[in-house]
Amino acid sequence: MEKVVLAYSGGLDTSVILKWLIERGYDVVAYIADVGQREDLEAARQKALKAGASKVYIEDLKREFVTDYIFTALKGSALYEGRYMLGTSLARPIIAKKQIEIAAKENARYVSHGATGKGNDQVRFELSYYALNPQIKVIAPWKEKDFLDQFKGRTDMIAYAQKHDIQVDATIAKPYSMDANLMHISYEAGILEDPKAKPPKDMFRTTLSPEDAPDKVTSIAISFKDGIPVKVENRENGRIETDSLALFVYLNELGANNGIGRVDMVENRYVGIKSRGVYETPGGTILWKAHQDLEAIAMDREVYRLKESLMPRFAELIYYGYWFSPEMDFLVAAFNKSQEAINGTVYLELYKGNVTCVGRESESSLYDPELSSMDVEGGYDQRAAQGFININAIRLKAHHLILKRVGLKR
Amino acid sequence: MEKVVLAYSGGLDTSVILKWLIERGYDVVAYIADVGQREDLEAARQKALKAGASKVYIEDLKREFVTDYIFTALKGSALYEGRYMLGTSLARPIIAKKQIEIAAKENARYVSHGATGKGNDQVRFELSYYALNPQIKVIAPWKEKDFLDQFKGRTDMIAYAQKHDIQVDATIAKPYSMDANLMHISYEAGILEDPKAKPPKDMFRTTLSPEDAPDKVTSIAISFKDGIPVKVENRENGRIETDSLALFVYLNELGANNGIGRVDMVENRYVGIKSRGVYETPGGTILWKAHQDLEAIAMDREVYRLKESLMPRFAELIYYGYWFSPEMDFLVAAFNKSQEAINGTVYLELYKGNVTCVGRESESSLYDPELSSMDVEGGYDQRAAQGFININAIRLKAHHLILKRVGLKR
Amino acid sequence: MEKVVLAYSGGLDTSVILKWLIERGYDVVAYIADVGQREDLEAARQKALKAGASKVYIEDLKREFVTDYIFTALKGSALYEGRYMLGTSLARPIIAKKQIEIAAKENARYVSHGATGKGNDQVRFELSYYALNPQIKVIAPWKEKDFLDQFKGRTDMIAYAQKHDIQVDATIAKPYSMDANLMHISYEAGILEDPKAKPPKDMFRTTLSPEDAPDKVTSIAISFKDGIPVKVENRENGRIETDSLALFVYLNELGANNGIGRVDMVENRYVGIKSRGVYETPGGTILWKAHQDLEAIAMDREVYRLKESLMPRFAELIYYGYWFSPEMDFLVAAFNKSQEAINGTVYLELYKGNVTCVGRESESSLYDPELSSMDVEGGYDQRAAQGFININAIRLKAHHLILKRVGLKR
Amino acid sequence: MEKVVLAYSGGLDTSVILKWLIERGYDVVAYIADVGQREDLEAARQKALKAGASKVYIEDLKREFVTDYIFTALKGSALYEGRYMLGTSLARPIIAKKQIEIAAKENARYVSHGATGKGNDQVRFELSYYALNPQIKVIAPWKEKDFLDQFKGRTDMIAYAQKHDIQVDATIAKPYSMDANLMHISYEAGILEDPKAKPPKDMFRTTLSPEDAPDKVTSIAISFKDGIPVKVENRENGRIETDSLALFVYLNELGANNGIGRVDMVENRYVGIKSRGVYETPGGTILWKAHQDLEAIAMDREVYRLKESLMPRFAELIYYGYWFSPEMDFLVAAFNKSQEAINGTVYLELYKGNVTCVGRESESSLYDPELSSMDVEGGYDQRAAQGFININAIRLKAHHLILKRVGLKR
Repeated sequence: MEKVVLAYSGGLDTSVILKWLIERGYDVVAYIADVGQREDLEAARQKALKAGASKVYIEDLKREFVTDYIFTALKGSALYEGRYMLGTSLARPIIAKKQIEIAAKENARYVSHGATGKGNDQVRFELSYYALNPQIKVIAPWKEKDFLDQFKGRTDMIAYAQKHDIQVDATIAKPYSMDANLMHISYEAGILEDPKAKPPKDMFRTTLSPEDAPDKVTSIAISFKDGIPVKVENRENGRIETDSLALFVYLNELGANNGIGRVDMVENRYVGIKSRGVYETPGGTILWKAHQDLEAIAMDREVYRLKESLMPRFAELIYYGYWFSPEMDFLVAAFNKSQEAINGTVYLELYKGNVTCVGRESESSLYDPELSSMDVEGGYDQRAAQGFININAIRLKAHHLILKRVGLKR
Repeated sequence: MEKVVLAYSGGLDTSVILKWLIERGYDVVAYIADVGQREDLEAARQKALKAGASKVYIEDLKREFVTDYIFTALKGSALYEGRYMLGTSLARPIIAKKQIEIAAKENARYVSHGATGKGNDQVRFELSYYALNPQIKVIAPWKEKDFLDQFKGRTDMIAYAQKHDIQVDATIAKPYSMDANLMHISYEAGILEDPKAKPPKDMFRTTLSPEDAPDKVTSIAISFKDGIPVKVENRENGRIETDSLALFVYLNELGANNGIGRVDMVENRYVGIKSRGVYETPGGTILWKAHQDLEAIAMDREVYRLKESLMPRFAELIYYGYWFSPEMDFLVAAFNKSQEAINGTVYLELYKGNVTCVGRESESSLYDPELSSMDVEGGYDQRAAQGFININAIRLKAHHLILKRVGLKR
Repeated sequence: MEKVVLAYSGGLDTSVILKWLIERGYDVVAYIADVGQREDLEAARQKALKAGASKVYIEDLKREFVTDYIFTALKGSALYEGRYMLGTSLARPIIAKKQIEIAAKENARYVSHGATGKGNDQVRFELSYYALNPQIKVIAPWKEKDFLDQFKGRTDMIAYAQKHDIQVDATIAKPYSMDANLMHISYEAGILEDPKAKPPKDMFRTTLSPEDAPDKVTSIAISFKDGIPVKVENRENGRIETDSLALFVYLNELGANNGIGRVDMVENRYVGIKSRGVYETPGGTILWKAHQDLEAIAMDREVYRLKESLMPRFAELIYYGYWFSPEMDFLVAAFNKSQEAINGTVYLELYKGNVTCVGRESESSLYDPELSSMDVEGGYDQRAAQGFININAIRLKAHHLILKRVGLKR
Repeated sequence: MEKVVLAYSGGLDTSVILKWLIERGYDVVAYIADVGQREDLEAARQKALKAGASKVYIEDLKREFVTDYIFTALKGSALYEGRYMLGTSLARPIIAKKQIEIAAKENARYVSHGATGKGNDQVRFELSYYALNPQIKVIAPWKEKDFLDQFKGRTDMIAYAQKHDIQVDATIAKPYSMDANLMHISYEAGILEDPKAKPPKDMFRTTLSPEDAPDKVTSIAISFKDGIPVKVENRENGRIETDSLALFVYLNELGANNGIGRVDMVENRYVGIKSRGVYETPGGTILWKAHQDLEAIAMDREVYRLKESLMPRFAELIYYGYWFSPEMDFLVAAFNKSQEAINGTVYLELYKGNVTCVGRESESSLYDPELSSMDVEGGYDQRAAQGFININAIRLKAHHLILKRVGLKR
């Protein structure tokens, strides 16, 4: 009897898959990753056992998710297509990694997941699986003919669930699909598929809308060491958080209360389809912004340029599912180097969707007045700029003559 | 008697320079560029004549500034160091271009400007001059020993002005310096040099703060043709603008009234110094955002990737002063290609600093439901994704084996 | 009866496929692309008819191949992974384009090709087909279960051919596979799969080895207009070719006679496998080299930098099969811009594998002595360099102080 | 009396500078860097002392030059503008570094060099000085008005030398200038300034021309560990070198004897001028080639892509003089990561200018037959390629429909 470790959420899809795998003769180990989705995981455990799982793992990955995934993305300033903060993309590799570890412990040759065949998550899961264990066998029911033939829509799944005594929370189709974790909640599909349709007001689960957020500024300060946040301070009430997980959770709370971190965008999936996604990333939005303002004073210009030019590739790798890849290791080596001495504190105001930097200070500031006033070289010599400009102009003058000579118009 | 065309603003600095050039024996033609700075240009003309200018040109560059400079930047989505919309950087080349044209008409061998030796504007002016006329001679008083010796500070300039009967608006030093045009107002220096200091509330000239902006959403729609805005509609009151200049001015008004477009940042100058700048770019901010949302549905993913990877270089060229350069022509050729068929309408809500896209539609949408549902290929075959993933995993599997074989840890 | 247009070579594989398609009920139109492979195409026509093709097209694509494909690659200096000149990659899209045109003329809903499922050519053919006609149906027997089950090896194909009275040239397996066209001959697979094995001396069909090439230099000159060769002159005997096709054929002859253009490399296929390829590209090698030397004097430095940084992506697009793609159009727009005024003549010596530039001249040379001596600006002022260096050093000085302050070691 | 450490070569220029500095009241410490230029350094020492140097340092930098500079460039595959192997560029930072160390030891506030104001070396020296000691004062006579006024040409220098009893080797002007070190000899200026002029045969000092090289192949093997050569073997005579310095010297000998490593090119100087340079880099050429062939089998494709796209910037940094810069540290961190497990042996044939790889093997080969045959995943499934292609085609199909709909032509 083959053993399979199934990434299990407690929802309809993976419950149906769990039962379906059992029906096909597998010994199913259910694995529930706690990445901060704030659902009742104990209830999920009972549901899995009731459906026939031989064993259930609940793994608390929240701290590692923050320190090894979210903060790694932060150091590279990852932003997909200019806006998406990659909340789901970052969670998939850590879920897959633990799943492969459980498969090893359980001597299971198979892993399974419930991601569909049109989306990005299937790729993120499976590339992570294969990168971490090339011998692993993957069962992806949503890409299997038998499964697709049996379940043509949500109705089939609900009927199957009812037949097998699997509890179904919602009998009617949800108007959109959702993925939640410590970093964000994402919404897609359903009514969101019309790119002209505004999302319903009651869709958002964590953030207040800017309109509903308090009409009062919240002042905070975030301190960093080597590019990583080490302290969050609420300057209104003096509350301070210094633990990685605690400060990230607190930033989520601050952001959510101030209408911060909503994004509504059309994006390009790895499988070549355009897709509309709506996201709430309250804490991440504040953190990315603060980090940007600190880098602005503490990072060398040319290091910034290199980092900026590599960022889109970095975000693409995360989005596409190449977290565990040699090219990611290559980029991370450089980004880690760039974060040495990105130390200091950024002062921010949160107000109705806005995150405004109102001050920054850094022991390693390259903006230090001492340097800015150029005393280190006995003062900036304004006439040096003449030579600088004249040398840089040589090329342009030569080009102008050629344009004229060959009769090209500018 | 050598003739010099001076870029004249009517302010203290260029008035002093005008007189100083005359004292040194030059015939000074004053040239006032109207790039939408909303100052009393007639008064400036009188001031120049009174100070001894032999002639005064006032050139209305507003329309050309919008269509040939701002919209070119828009097509490349230019954003310097992630945030600065380049309002001043874009104005300098058009000012320089007209100045070189006047010099040709006036048979003047010299041009002059009042930009300092520590900033970016000197470079932007002079590289533009040289690129457009390699034989031109540049007088940059702020880089000349004589001038620097004579004017050690603002007090010397005021004294000189008073001695020469030049009207001085402010006898006390301004707390910061400012540059205004149709696209933005920038603030720097003075009290802003402390990166920890929040700008004073009364500094901002055009935009309301988010706090002071109305507590009510303004809904608008912007339509584009080949990446260029061709219509702005206020959906509250039905006002429509379709002229390039008029619609840009109207976007400025809409943005300003809704607290949109303020940026406070530390940036890297071309001369190697970090500098703190505060900007108000109300209309540009709305326009860039709308354009981004339209590209999201109408631009191919890989074209977007290329454009995204080249954008930082494009913004750098604009910021550094290389508007008239062969490398700029190279990039613009590609960006223009990318904007073909970027057609459609974006629906936005403006509210207290937030610009939120709530819908987009496009005749050339790659998100068209017809395509999204994949009917064009008889439906997306979910099982194709299996092959896609397996092929992409080959490399990662091979790499994993090598890591193990040579004993490298991930 | 469904009609299919088959890309037919006259070889064993496509002859078997032709018959196999007929057996499955298709009306097969055989299409033979003449891309300069120097085979007996009339014999191939007869073979196709004999095997049952209802019609045979022989299309002479040589001139278009040179002017629209090879020269486009030349303008972008395409070189895959530093070395491969893309001879096969460039031929595939033009073959596919004509095939789609024939399918349209013939009202055929299907096209077919004989490329295997492990290689790059299948991707190049099929992506081109789909890009040019999204509705086209592709029959790729080497990816079809039935075909793969029927033909497990070369022996099965030979038996099938003999049974169906298809003439087989070689009854024994070839020691490697080959692809020839006007630009190159490639060799791969078989005995070449051992990366440690040196290719047999008698494998090479066109080029002499450097050892066998004459012990005497051949001097030639190549002239370009806007980046395109317009004249080749043999300076030994005065022979001149000015027609695009004729000059390219002549460069092939010159290169082959002088042992030029062999490459033996391991490369990365698009499907994620490393592959060993050996190539002979005699004319292309000379042409790329001459073009490089002309760009060196006639192209602006920063344009060169942009082009150099984009070239690997350009070569990758060609290699992977994205000739007909919006991202290719984007790059080509920029590259075409860069080739304006790349005019002039390069003098080369060919000798036993070496192509040595011994002189270059250009009307649009940026190296013009007039410019080089800097008289255009009244002479280069050596002291300007001081300002240039000092300004560029500001950043480095500031960084050094930070390194010391935070105790980081260089 | 101020002390200055002068980078001294023993040639006419730096001898004149030495004396000129003494005349201006400096205590001059002469510093001779041995970077393998193969000149009589003891004679140079005596010459310096005779001219009035208070002290002479001769520093043997050869080993460090190979291991910390040449091999670092090798790991990044540095090649400037496609061809120049950066022999002089790599030597300047190590020379400057030691000079700054001597200045510290000698408590000298000044350093001086003899590089001209039109070239790259001045920038390389001075940026290195400032990066390593922001307080250092630089005396660059070729950018000083007094010096330039006094020495208008070579004749003035010879006269000055004769007057001060400085031995002058050549009384007549050399036909070109030269720079030699362990890595290369460069030639520029003089008769080489005509880009159409072929260099004289007797100019080359180390390499035989391909014509003069032996008519016989030399077979060698080079082994690497983590991207660094650890063994060179002459397969003709069994000679083996394993020491870093010794193996590099031996590669120089092998290359020189086989006519390998000559480059004649027009390049772009940092100061905006095009310049013609001729180089001999025999050992480096062989080494770069071998390293390329090893990376081809042992480096992941996407890591290669990233490295390839960053290489031009890396080479530019070296060429421009930014060896000691934070952006260089950023790139080197990534390149070092990429070289882990670049282990193995490359077999090469050297013949009349040609370096031909005839075999490669690696314990960390990603080309391992085991992987190539895809047994690790139970064999490559050719049908997986269908899904791979179909998914990748989705974008292209959608784009085609848009092209048609909006009436754009391909």
